[in-house]
Amino acid sequence: MSLVVVGSVAYDGIETPYGKADRLLGGSATYIALAASYFTAVKIVAVVGEDFDGDDWRLLQDHGIDLQGLERVPGRTFYWAGSYSPDLNDRTTLTTELNVFAGFDPRLPEEYRSAPYLFLGNIQPSLQDRVRRQMNHPRLVGGDTMNLWIREAMRDLAETLQGWDVLLVNDSEARMLTGESNLRAAAQKILNMGPHTVIIKRGEYGAVLFQRDGYFISPGFLLESVYDPTGAGDSFAGGFMGYLAGCGAHPATHAALRRAVIYGSVMGSFCCEEFGVRRLARLTRAEIDARYREFQAFTHF
Amino acid sequence: MSLVVVGSVAYDGIETPYGKADRLLGGSATYIALAASYFTAVKIVAVVGEDFDGDDWRLLQDHGIDLQGLERVPGRTFYWAGSYSPDLNDRTTLTTELNVFAGFDPRLPEEYRSAPYLFLGNIQPSLQDRVRRQMNHPRLVGGDTMNLWIREAMRDLAETLQGWDVLLVNDSEARMLTGESNLRAAAQKILNMGPHTVIIKRGEYGAVLFQRDGYFISPGFLLESVYDPTGAGDSFAGGFMGYLAGCGAHPATHAALRRAVIYGSVMGSFCCEEFGVRRLARLTRAEIDARYREFQAFTHF
Repeated sequence: MSLVVVGSVAYDGIETPYGKADRLLGGSATYIALAASYFTAVKIVAVVGEDFDGDDWRLLQDHGIDLQGLERVPGRTFYWAGSYSPDLNDRTTLTTELNVFAGFDPRLPEEYRSAPYLFLGNIQPSLQDRVRRQMNHPRLVGGDTMNLWIREAMRDLAETLQGWDVLLVNDSEARMLTGESNLRAAAQKILNMGPHTVIIKRGEYGAVLFQRDGYFISPGFLLESVYDPTGAGDSFAGGFMGYLAGCGAHPATHAALRRAVIYGSVMGSFCCEEFGVRRLARLTRAEIDARYREFQAFTHF
Repeated sequence: MSLVVVGSVAYDGIETPYGKADRLLGGSATYIALAASYFTAVKIVAVVGEDFDGDDWRLLQDHGIDLQGLERVPGRTFYWAGSYSPDLNDRTTLTTELNVFAGFDPRLPEEYRSAPYLFLGNIQPSLQDRVRRQMNHPRLVGGDTMNLWIREAMRDLAETLQGWDVLLVNDSEARMLTGESNLRAAAQKILNMGPHTVIIKRGEYGAVLFQRDGYFISPGFLLESVYDPTGAGDSFAGGFMGYLAGCGAHPATHAALRRAVIYGSVMGSFCCEEFGVRRLARLTRAEIDARYREFQAFTHF
């Protein structure tokens, strides 16, 4: 079943200890949509400028992604540049040029509105809410946020969260959102804010899924080498939501959510193997399923 | 089958954000032996001074621990004091008084020498080697080390490691020992140093077991609250070795090693719930098995 994804489509300048690249196709919606495209039909809602490259448009199209909702407007595409620390655990933003993204007012094409799955990538909470309200009763709504919105738009965030089923955040964001340093306590507070499921991502250490009556821990995949962690969290979200949409899972099915967390981890791990979306863009479903089975093998006891 | 444990028996002064306590029974051999005592018969090799408390002696005895090898000599017991950071992730050593431990020359009682399992707690590598050489062909030899010996006694450490089956270290020690920042690469180098199995502990994030032909990742247990992490790594070692000794596992049985890693994680998690050995000392096997089943429940997919 189809999945609507809203977020940014951007160009990134990335520096890691392994190299440097400029104007790489990036943005949260790009990573989420590409990762999800291996599991289900994806419809993107985003905005790009006149400089957006035809090859990048085709790359998304070649993954069967519906681009009716990808507006092309006068001006330049959102540009972000960042540099990673030697151990890749910290990154410094060098440039953020919102460009056409500053005026982004997401409008959903008519055909998008009855899609059963919706993922709200990391944009202003008020925009996330506006997208959600254009949908006709989606079966499952997931979303992401970041420290910037927790700090500067907490009221809007709290309001939109009430309409979400699943929140994906990283551990520091979960702590910031709740004021609780203990992960279990933070998760319980988030579950009182609206979502019935919260997934707390812990970078290389994996992710934890919490619901009121249980939790599930997935360790991270041990990569031989990490070239570029940009987009790993969004790729996780894409694998997670894409898997659920692909099997038409009812949102309350705990077993499907667990498998979705593993598929999220699989996609996040692949993402780090090369710069930008390069690895993500040339995966096969067989490679994805092989890594899923590796997760089974190294966690089973 | 019985397990011989060598290490320190000490008094600890501990300050955490949750409180402060002085002269708590501690030391690596104490934590390892207590944790292992829930699974198998344990024989301790260590030294204490004249100040060693009768109640502490009885506490060890009450757990069925053989104290023939616990020498009592003139002088004071090894004393260590430390203070933890607010998030418990860092600790500062305030005092180290070696006292009787400075002249420790471990001699194994005759009855210890044919025990099939041996664990070498964190003491000078040359002393670990001396203990190992007093044993008659143990079935499985495990051991621990620390940054101090990697820095100051690397030659001795490399020599003694050649006779070990299993090395337990934390992630920063594994990196320091091998000069490899990637965990997989570090593990492969360690497997070339002698042990057929290396377990890399990652604090709250769990542990990874590596062998030449495979690996196993255990996430950490999500505690509601952590009062005092002192001894958690040693409790892990005790649960790990105790379980293997208790079921008489052949060292090459990968499935038993995986279960042992989970029992190690279980014991490490209990250890953090109260100051010093308090929680560890009043556990029941039923509580331990219940937490083992919780690990099964939250990792299964």
